[in-house]
Amino acid sequence: MRRDGQIAQLLREAGESVPYTSIDTFHEWWNRRLENAHVSVRKVPFSELDSWGFDPDTGNLQHSSGRFFSVEGLQVRGGASPWSQPVINQSEIGVLGILVKEINGVLHCLMQAKMEPGNVNMLQLSPTVQATRSNYTKVHRGTSTRYLEYFVGPQRGQVLVDVLQSEQGAWFWCKRNRNIVVLVTEDVPLHEDYHWLSLEQVRSLARTDNLINMDARTVLSCMPFALPEEAEAVDSDPFRRALVRSYHYRGEGPESRPLHTVGDILSWFIEAKSGCDWSARLVPLKNVTGWRHTQDEITDDQHFRIIGVEVESVTREVQQWSQPLLQPYGQGRALFLARPINGILHLLVQAHEEPGLLDQVEMAPTVHLLPGADESVTLDPFVRDALASDSVTVHYDQVLSEEGGRFHQALTRYQIMEVGDDVPTDVPPNYCWMTVRQLFDLLRHGHYLNIEARSLIACLHSLH
Amino acid sequence: MRRDGQIAQLLREAGESVPYTSIDTFHEWWNRRLENAHVSVRKVPFSELDSWGFDPDTGNLQHSSGRFFSVEGLQVRGGASPWSQPVINQSEIGVLGILVKEINGVLHCLMQAKMEPGNVNMLQLSPTVQATRSNYTKVHRGTSTRYLEYFVGPQRGQVLVDVLQSEQGAWFWCKRNRNIVVLVTEDVPLHEDYHWLSLEQVRSLARTDNLINMDARTVLSCMPFALPEEAEAVDSDPFRRALVRSYHYRGEGPESRPLHTVGDILSWFIEAKSGCDWSARLVPLKNVTGWRHTQDEITDDQHFRIIGVEVESVTREVQQWSQPLLQPYGQGRALFLARPINGILHLLVQAHEEPGLLDQVEMAPTVHLLPGADESVTLDPFVRDALASDSVTVHYDQVLSEEGGRFHQALTRYQIMEVGDDVPTDVPPNYCWMTVRQLFDLLRHGHYLNIEARSLIACLHSLH
Repeated sequence: MRRDGQIAQLLREAGESVPYTSIDTFHEWWNRRLENAHVSVRKVPFSELDSWGFDPDTGNLQHSSGRFFSVEGLQVRGGASPWSQPVINQSEIGVLGILVKEINGVLHCLMQAKMEPGNVNMLQLSPTVQATRSNYTKVHRGTSTRYLEYFVGPQRGQVLVDVLQSEQGAWFWCKRNRNIVVLVTEDVPLHEDYHWLSLEQVRSLARTDNLINMDARTVLSCMPFALPEEAEAVDSDPFRRALVRSYHYRGEGPESRPLHTVGDILSWFIEAKSGCDWSARLVPLKNVTGWRHTQDEITDDQHFRIIGVEVESVTREVQQWSQPLLQPYGQGRALFLARPINGILHLLVQAHEEPGLLDQVEMAPTVHLLPGADESVTLDPFVRDALASDSVTVHYDQVLSEEGGRFHQALTRYQIMEVGDDVPTDVPPNYCWMTVRQLFDLLRHGHYLNIEARSLIACLHSLH
Repeated sequence: MRRDGQIAQLLREAGESVPYTSIDTFHEWWNRRLENAHVSVRKVPFSELDSWGFDPDTGNLQHSSGRFFSVEGLQVRGGASPWSQPVINQSEIGVLGILVKEINGVLHCLMQAKMEPGNVNMLQLSPTVQATRSNYTKVHRGTSTRYLEYFVGPQRGQVLVDVLQSEQGAWFWCKRNRNIVVLVTEDVPLHEDYHWLSLEQVRSLARTDNLINMDARTVLSCMPFALPEEAEAVDSDPFRRALVRSYHYRGEGPESRPLHTVGDILSWFIEAKSGCDWSARLVPLKNVTGWRHTQDEITDDQHFRIIGVEVESVTREVQQWSQPLLQPYGQGRALFLARPINGILHLLVQAHEEPGLLDQVEMAPTVHLLPGADESVTLDPFVRDALASDSVTVHYDQVLSEEGGRFHQALTRYQIMEVGDDVPTDVPPNYCWMTVRQLFDLLRHGHYLNIEARSLIACLHSLH
């Protein structure tokens, strides 16, 4: 069994070795996948959805098998005023798995070209396995999920990462998926929809709009494999030097330290949870107020609408199906402010309440705006001032997609901006400066970092 | 700010110093508290509960303020067959806080003699603060909560422990409380219902039936302050030697190691969660089937009943009130099997599904039987064989109380039994051998160890 130290060693050797495939070869493969993908996605009235219907008692939109997911109501009580909204309820735990292997002395990931009906661009680069339990137990009688045997059942490799992580707390009810990375040494048969890429190649592809899908990003964020500390010494760029330090320093060192201890951070987080004066619960969809329900959509005309689509595809397990999707109005925004403190890059993390989160609060990016949110109202004055600082340097700015299997063209603008000493280390109570290493330690456990924060961690990996 | 290392140092010095008070003085104080406590608890029909009533729409039993807690329905879907039961829903996060202070070079805890209406013996030894949010924001206009200012609001000491931990998943809906320990250096005014005891004195009192209450036990379990490793060398008892090692060894050492790595343990836990094919939700109490609802009780005649009580007391914040309580039929049982492996004591932990847990599964004792459960059906054959082994030594066997503020005379028999090499290290998939140190590392985070497992960890502390 390899230990984490040996994995790091693998990566340390990466500089001396070469990836299995060039990025040009990847793009050739990718373009062939696009050419071969024949997909049509058509909006249809709810009545034309096959096997989906509204329950006469609850008004919930659900599948006749009782599996997959349902659209129900979410009600928030307490707080300023009670409110309700539709929400996607998918209680089963899916698998988001990346198979990794040492090739030419370099850690490689087996990535998939995967079609999802909600994608703006049909195909995106996905984990080796991205499957709900209903998928892989074959409720809809499709072809079996490729490579699933590496993640489920008798162990065929070494588990490097294994953690339940949340998904959008604004749109899902207590959704969580198993983020899992398995290292194999055996030969793996390669299907044409899959491609081996070095970890660094995958990370660098996060700098392309709408390419690395949400499910891949969350798994990548949980892979705490860092560049060697020696990289710090040779890098002439101060941002990258502070970034590499941020991956390593745990604060035990005598000189420069993270601003806060892990104990301080955990206590800050519990304090934020304890301050919640509201609670949320599932209610029948028919009890949701303030949303229009027509034959084509359920909408509040501001945040999102529930629609139905009919899909025809030759690249997915099942060739033809229909399903509901959640379509947000407009684009979301997720932004981490980053600042070197004691020579170590710190990210400004926000304790963020979301009604559908399992435990109400998770750690979110500095700015976390949902589509339809009014930036001028929602943005904290401290953050607005920091964003207007002269010292801002934009290091990352891409538009990436949220889960295309449940959301219709849900896009988020992801940004990482560096600020200088003019932005203070003292911050409002719902914010806290943390190093990347501290976030990695939390990522071993579920329900600390929300999906948008994890996406941004995956983006941060592309900045080395 | 003191670091964990300094706290350990404090305890290391304990052998050379003396506690502030003798255990005889404690018992004198305790007997005076008992003499001064005038309490009557009387069962009443639901209609006689002041400010409590059944909601006409949902049938839920709730307080007119909408605060405190309510008795609602819990429905489980999927799995072998759907079923439902009443459940206590208390969404707000309460504070279970112990104030600690160095006195005569020894760490002391400020403990409270607290009356709860469901206690079999009126008073039990409780944390410094044990208060729901409704309590301390004074919804019921009682006297203010003593010592609350050390745990809420501007910091007045150093936070040593701060974590949200779950409570009974069979009886509560997603209940969690803030377990918090604050170290102060200042003088603390002492009220007659409170007493300073050294940590070791408190731990040793866990060997008395129904004395340390559940809320104190959970906080004590989260205090990872261990005996010095040197104790190992001088102890002639092999069990205690293996126990002390279990508090320290993290597995980095070259020679003897824990059986599993932390990564293995986390992956085992996620595997257990992923196997859940059921989901639970709140439903109106009137939708619960199979339970009789009379004017005095709601019951299935097997597991528990919901009753109403009227309380008169002079030792609590409010002198007179009435409330519902959950009364189990019979006594529960929680037992850890312990076995030295590689010279380190390991506990056999069970991944245990409970319908009211926030994330369905937590780590439970080897044996976790609810009142009303049929031992001959519920007990795993592997465990039954191990309990019948000739090598069994009973190290702990006491009856302790569950939360007397919500449960009426709920008792659990807590046991710790050592077994030998004849009980194998290979165990059924829902069990895993872990060291105490590994459990401590998980206890920094919520929702890993269930309340019964944490109670037993507090009991284990008494075995040094």
